[in-house]
Amino acid sequence: MEKPILVFQTDFTYAEGAVAAMYGVVKSVDRSLEIIDATHQLPQYDTYSASYRLFQYMNYWPKGTVFVSVCDPGVGTKRRASVARTANGYYVVSPDNGSLTHVAKFFGIEEIREIDETINRLRNGNNEEVSIFHGRDLFGYCAARLASGIISFEEVGPKYDVSEVVTHDLKEPTFTDNEIHGIIEINDPNFGNLWTNITKKSFEEFGFKHGDKIKTVIKHNGTEVFNDELFYYQSFGMAADHTVMIYNNEVNKIAMAQVIDNFAKNYNLGFGPEYEVTFKRG
Amino acid sequence: MEKPILVFQTDFTYAEGAVAAMYGVVKSVDRSLEIIDATHQLPQYDTYSASYRLFQYMNYWPKGTVFVSVCDPGVGTKRRASVARTANGYYVVSPDNGSLTHVAKFFGIEEIREIDETINRLRNGNNEEVSIFHGRDLFGYCAARLASGIISFEEVGPKYDVSEVVTHDLKEPTFTDNEIHGIIEINDPNFGNLWTNITKKSFEEFGFKHGDKIKTVIKHNGTEVFNDELFYYQSFGMAADHTVMIYNNEVNKIAMAQVIDNFAKNYNLGFGPEYEVTFKRG
Amino acid sequence: MEKPILVFQTDFTYAEGAVAAMYGVVKSVDRSLEIIDATHQLPQYDTYSASYRLFQYMNYWPKGTVFVSVCDPGVGTKRRASVARTANGYYVVSPDNGSLTHVAKFFGIEEIREIDETINRLRNGNNEEVSIFHGRDLFGYCAARLASGIISFEEVGPKYDVSEVVTHDLKEPTFTDNEIHGIIEINDPNFGNLWTNITKKSFEEFGFKHGDKIKTVIKHNGTEVFNDELFYYQSFGMAADHTVMIYNNEVNKIAMAQVIDNFAKNYNLGFGPEYEVTFKRG
Repeated sequence: MEKPILVFQTDFTYAEGAVAAMYGVVKSVDRSLEIIDATHQLPQYDTYSASYRLFQYMNYWPKGTVFVSVCDPGVGTKRRASVARTANGYYVVSPDNGSLTHVAKFFGIEEIREIDETINRLRNGNNEEVSIFHGRDLFGYCAARLASGIISFEEVGPKYDVSEVVTHDLKEPTFTDNEIHGIIEINDPNFGNLWTNITKKSFEEFGFKHGDKIKTVIKHNGTEVFNDELFYYQSFGMAADHTVMIYNNEVNKIAMAQVIDNFAKNYNLGFGPEYEVTFKRG
Repeated sequence: MEKPILVFQTDFTYAEGAVAAMYGVVKSVDRSLEIIDATHQLPQYDTYSASYRLFQYMNYWPKGTVFVSVCDPGVGTKRRASVARTANGYYVVSPDNGSLTHVAKFFGIEEIREIDETINRLRNGNNEEVSIFHGRDLFGYCAARLASGIISFEEVGPKYDVSEVVTHDLKEPTFTDNEIHGIIEINDPNFGNLWTNITKKSFEEFGFKHGDKIKTVIKHNGTEVFNDELFYYQSFGMAADHTVMIYNNEVNKIAMAQVIDNFAKNYNLGFGPEYEVTFKRG
Repeated sequence: MEKPILVFQTDFTYAEGAVAAMYGVVKSVDRSLEIIDATHQLPQYDTYSASYRLFQYMNYWPKGTVFVSVCDPGVGTKRRASVARTANGYYVVSPDNGSLTHVAKFFGIEEIREIDETINRLRNGNNEEVSIFHGRDLFGYCAARLASGIISFEEVGPKYDVSEVVTHDLKEPTFTDNEIHGIIEINDPNFGNLWTNITKKSFEEFGFKHGDKIKTVIKHNGTEVFNDELFYYQSFGMAADHTVMIYNNEVNKIAMAQVIDNFAKNYNLGFGPEYEVTFKRG
């Protein structure tokens, strides 16, 4: 049977040698394993973004793919180091620190096991004394052993109850007769687009359609920081450059962009439950 | 027959999950395809840079390589999504929006086809409703099918006339008895070097040789922004640190650099037809 | 016999097409070679960092791996272009310009050869005239030929004496009855941690142990720039957020971090022999 691909996301960047050390460990476990970068530019220590990105791209990969997510502010403390088997057919190797939130909620975790460090931790000279690099010594090493078939999922370590998985609170949008209330649930840090938690389906069932001009208010911790009427378009090229507009994003949720420009930066907007958005009927 | 490599360039960066979703699609089409990053740091929306970079590195790859270029400010509008077969033996999968300029001019396009979305667009749950991520849903998917041999080049979609390919205007240098006039046609955004459109061959046939001190003037929209006498050297190490000098760049065109420093940044210089450069005889 | 992996580190970044051209050359030499990025974000022209990063990750790779390091401020000058065979079982292809310092000192170089440009330099159209891109034309090309088995190590070019390898001075820490004196030998540019040249072993043999509060002074060119009492902890999660603390880093040397924050940036600290650090008994 073909060995699964290892897909990595971390907040390490490529600014120093950490990724190279981690990948060397994988290749030393099994030279034939295929490694692909999802990203090494997760926002530092941001387990919510780690969780969201897994949700964003996981389903596009072949079943059986092993995702390794290392955003690990609590490295060396009691947070569990785990491997989850998801209901949609993948494995996720990650600290159980919130990084599994979206996977647990939207795809489902069938079974989760805590990595047994006595078996699945790298022992290479004196690196047993190192407590701060589990990406290399624990997650990367254990993931490589699993993908290679050296250990089975059961041999990762002891199972624990899926209900114990650490999760962030996720907000659901609410609907009144005249308004949809949601939050900006994540950003696109490259193009400066902001993605809400409102699905395209519910937005259109509410009655909004392409070409509508929609009153849009964004509040940050209760204070209004944006208020304008925005068109809802199918894609960016349909509005004039620099126009702020509403569109359906790549995960079929409602988002806002400034055409050929950067909405988040120009309006100094971020994401999270403190950024509430309201779309109002005309 | 061995499957061609897929080489990707985009303006997505690795800041979020877009590249990972796109690569997952490729691997789901055919697990055995090899993916290599050319870059995901094209300047945003800059189809001219996209075009130049393909020109810069294409010829170094094995014949048959499939290049996927996604710099796509007009995603979701009427610009064509295309696959070009080049005269030098490659395929380029790209929006036909100027990104094919240098390939068309310097290497030649033998045949170009518009991607038939009814056949070569990803259908994965409800992502048919997504109009803003052709890198994942159209270019990456179609390129993977082509590289895998699932479709032939003819099955990409209908052929159209090569003369219809959208191109940027490219300026040629001019020569008088005492001067060469050109433009800064591209930058090296890392080291801050600036590359002109003047070939080494024409520069040396004009009479300049290593060791010459050459009067150099740069104008931005007609206003002089740099004026100095620069030495023409074979390589950087031959001048003192921080010296601005002239050299032959990696595509055999005349360029300027500040040794162990950043010419473009320190002198606030960019590239494009609005940056004219003149080299004058002694 | 399986072909070795090629692991690349450069200061090219992915901002333009240089990496893509270099990797195309490798794949044109031998389509089956596996290429992995160590990093393309070495600090520009910083051969000391190049040297340190090789030291940081090399030993985690399978024996026989070919490392290609291109941080080459003297490209096109008389510095040697070399391939080293290391005592720990690897090859390093690099300019001999200080980039081999740590490998030579800590792992040992068994034999070093200067690349013979008449045999192991790319000839592709008119790129013989290019003097400024040895990553593509010399290091990448030669490394691919070596990894592919087209040339043996002996066929790289003439051997020279290992004692001639160019190295940076490396400082050793000193110990008095009450103090350890060292330097900040490198940074973690991502998380802002600072790594000293003092081993965990010597630090603990001196008498420091987890939980100790240690008087810590940092001087920059003799001027005190940091002075505080810091706890020595096993890992970051054991101190409150934003606390500056001492820990054992991933190469088993003593380091300092600001928890969930950036020590180097917040205190404006760098690395090198001009940054001296003293840890004093309580």
